[in-house]
Amino acid sequence: MNNYLLSPELAGRIYDSRFERYLREWGELLAFESISTDAQYAKNCLACAGWLVEHLRSIGLEAGLLETSSKPVVWGNYRGRPEAPRVIFYGHYDVQPVEPLEDWVSPPFKATLRDGRLHARGAQDNKGQTFYVLKALETLIEQKALDCNVTLLIEGEEESGSKGIAASLSGWKDKIAGDVLLVCDTGALRAGVPCITMGLRGIVALEFTLGGLSHDLHSGVLGGVVKNPAIEITRLLSTLYADDGRIAVEGFYDGVSEPQSADRSLANASWIGDDVLQKMIGVEPCGGEPGYSSPERRGFRPTLEINGLNSGYSGPGVKTIIPSKASAKLTARVVPGQDPHAVLEKICEHLRKRVPRGLNFEIIEKGVGGPAVALSTQHPVVLLAAEVLQHACEGKVEYTWEGGSIPIVAELAKHSGAVPLLVGFGLEEDRIHAPNESFLLSQFRLGFLSMCLLLQALGRYRP
Amino acid sequence: MNNYLLSPELAGRIYDSRFERYLREWGELLAFESISTDAQYAKNCLACAGWLVEHLRSIGLEAGLLETSSKPVVWGNYRGRPEAPRVIFYGHYDVQPVEPLEDWVSPPFKATLRDGRLHARGAQDNKGQTFYVLKALETLIEQKALDCNVTLLIEGEEESGSKGIAASLSGWKDKIAGDVLLVCDTGALRAGVPCITMGLRGIVALEFTLGGLSHDLHSGVLGGVVKNPAIEITRLLSTLYADDGRIAVEGFYDGVSEPQSADRSLANASWIGDDVLQKMIGVEPCGGEPGYSSPERRGFRPTLEINGLNSGYSGPGVKTIIPSKASAKLTARVVPGQDPHAVLEKICEHLRKRVPRGLNFEIIEKGVGGPAVALSTQHPVVLLAAEVLQHACEGKVEYTWEGGSIPIVAELAKHSGAVPLLVGFGLEEDRIHAPNESFLLSQFRLGFLSMCLLLQALGRYRP
Repeated sequence: MNNYLLSPELAGRIYDSRFERYLREWGELLAFESISTDAQYAKNCLACAGWLVEHLRSIGLEAGLLETSSKPVVWGNYRGRPEAPRVIFYGHYDVQPVEPLEDWVSPPFKATLRDGRLHARGAQDNKGQTFYVLKALETLIEQKALDCNVTLLIEGEEESGSKGIAASLSGWKDKIAGDVLLVCDTGALRAGVPCITMGLRGIVALEFTLGGLSHDLHSGVLGGVVKNPAIEITRLLSTLYADDGRIAVEGFYDGVSEPQSADRSLANASWIGDDVLQKMIGVEPCGGEPGYSSPERRGFRPTLEINGLNSGYSGPGVKTIIPSKASAKLTARVVPGQDPHAVLEKICEHLRKRVPRGLNFEIIEKGVGGPAVALSTQHPVVLLAAEVLQHACEGKVEYTWEGGSIPIVAELAKHSGAVPLLVGFGLEEDRIHAPNESFLLSQFRLGFLSMCLLLQALGRYRP
Repeated sequence: MNNYLLSPELAGRIYDSRFERYLREWGELLAFESISTDAQYAKNCLACAGWLVEHLRSIGLEAGLLETSSKPVVWGNYRGRPEAPRVIFYGHYDVQPVEPLEDWVSPPFKATLRDGRLHARGAQDNKGQTFYVLKALETLIEQKALDCNVTLLIEGEEESGSKGIAASLSGWKDKIAGDVLLVCDTGALRAGVPCITMGLRGIVALEFTLGGLSHDLHSGVLGGVVKNPAIEITRLLSTLYADDGRIAVEGFYDGVSEPQSADRSLANASWIGDDVLQKMIGVEPCGGEPGYSSPERRGFRPTLEINGLNSGYSGPGVKTIIPSKASAKLTARVVPGQDPHAVLEKICEHLRKRVPRGLNFEIIEKGVGGPAVALSTQHPVVLLAAEVLQHACEGKVEYTWEGGSIPIVAELAKHSGAVPLLVGFGLEEDRIHAPNESFLLSQFRLGFLSMCLLLQALGRYRP
């Protein structure tokens, strides 16, 4: 396994000599305001997809757009040796919203180098992680070192539910059939050490309002007379949680099983440490359920988080109103064994049953992203990847059960027949989804080197 | 009492012949964006005060600005018969913020006639109610029908705590000493029927945040690992309330006594009816404590309302974050017998004791507006006013114990030695403090007529 056509050393030299160009191209990709969750950025998303198609062609792939019921998927293809395995690579070109804009040190869509990091929305998630894969492919093709067949699917709605691609997969069976589903949309536990993600939680989302008042009322004139939606939403939401941190929705934990002790040990052994995490995030990591360590809580346990809460006045000073309504955005992360559709219905039912007299409950939006994904550390693809990744950093490899969700991965695995392999180089310090997102340049380089080796090695994989 | 120098009939004819001019001047007053709670409108507040000084002079009063530690108070004075009583009129030229701006049918600072109402921020509260007093004064002075001495104090911070005027009163004793403290900043129960307000609740305010996270976290990566401020603020706030609607803060009800049965009967007899209110506001008036009717709950019982609640993402779609912080704005209305300072401290203490491990609690702002005010229906000024107001509408007079607060009234009564007389013509449909505030033109006219008669009659009042 140690004889690569393109050696790690040569790949590193190529990277260093071309880095200035990579940075310029990467900045072009980051300049697109491809925020999928907000309809006003639909054109920006399309423009970004168009740029990617051109870029794929320029590095030696066939490329085009696969239309869906909403945003198109960027498709790319490389024909390797016919009998070599087919790798399906999945990434996404859409990004999270940028609010609060005033917290950004440099503009979110102007890629800016600072402290060894490239700062921009999407610098890591997922434009950055997709881009080192493209640069690795470019290099391997140019050096005639790519044996396997590669199909790229880079979608535009990962941050808003992957609806278009999800509805299209059953019609694309021929296009997407493959052996390995490579995804670089996950994180590593520390800089310089490659990490294989062994599990992803699934996700469901719900937004609702509690209201019915025809307008904001004067809180003196009618305070104590009518129910206050801001008060009642805190009372309603608080019933979702038990005092010990468990979720209090009836049946929420149905189907959840205890993690295997080997996985539990591996997750704990790879953990960065609560003290290190605390330094990064500013607070003690003491949320969630009792009886589980931090990596166990995020890797193996389901959650129900409030992502947004809004009612009444939030400007400066005092405004003496009873707000006409209150609204909340929730997402639950589900683990293997949980049916995400059932979980969502149980949450809705819990809330509906407890709506206070005198106010209206209205569901604004609800949806299921996808179920959880779990892999075995003993799967041949995982064993192969672990061996190869050591060569990229001349060190060890770590395993994580990540708490995040890439809802489409389970669907893609089902429809493509490929086994998921999740290798990513993001770090908690990257602040993905938050202001001042960035990607550490040394991690970008490690991603490039790892992909150069992994894609060569996968050419020798026998499913 | 029926012989007025300026009869109701003549006053009505004068009003009708001049209404077009009144409307133009009133619109000029409403055009000032005098939002006191937000520092960026400080200049607009000053400009509004300047306009008022000029206007007072133009209608025959001495006028000027009384400087305070913050916004100036507009002072006006009319010298009547030396031995006649002195009426201190209190009003305010500042207004509430206008958010959400997109809900306004016409621009908030462009007075617009629609459906027999003048629409604008402040159309009623309190620019409109102050303006019919000014037009009554103008008419009485012109007709030589004003016997009593009148001092006007129109402040610029009623909506944000009256700090400037409150700190100045003790130094203004000579200027403000009087017999009757007339305030037209309250409401009537129905159109066409004058109403005397017999009590006002006091107010305290508190804003706090729960946070400590250095940035918004990815809710998948760290969901279940750290405490979520949006969740914890709902859990914390919900502890303020008992299931039956009472406030659960220890000692909150200290000093509160049951309303007298005569007042209770009068408040209930004058009530518009829960069914009528429900049609106005869209929801059943079933908030507050058990065992009290709607007018009793608003007139005689204290409250603790959430006026604003904010955490995380509130834009379109889903954003999968653990918000870095959550904040809440609260106000409590206090009744006679409650010490507002003690109430505020008890609320802070309740919250502080329950701050969840792992998060920081920070008080952003807290303050005491003022204590409650209560009057007797048998006071000679109230009896006189009740008799006069019947002449203005040829009908009956109603009494209300209003739930709102005009924090400075208790202080003004103390420092001026004057007995408060609260007569206002606002209606619930005016939507004060909310988008599309307006004032019914027929109520404005009734206010004008009532003030023409009341100010004449007060000239014959013997304290």
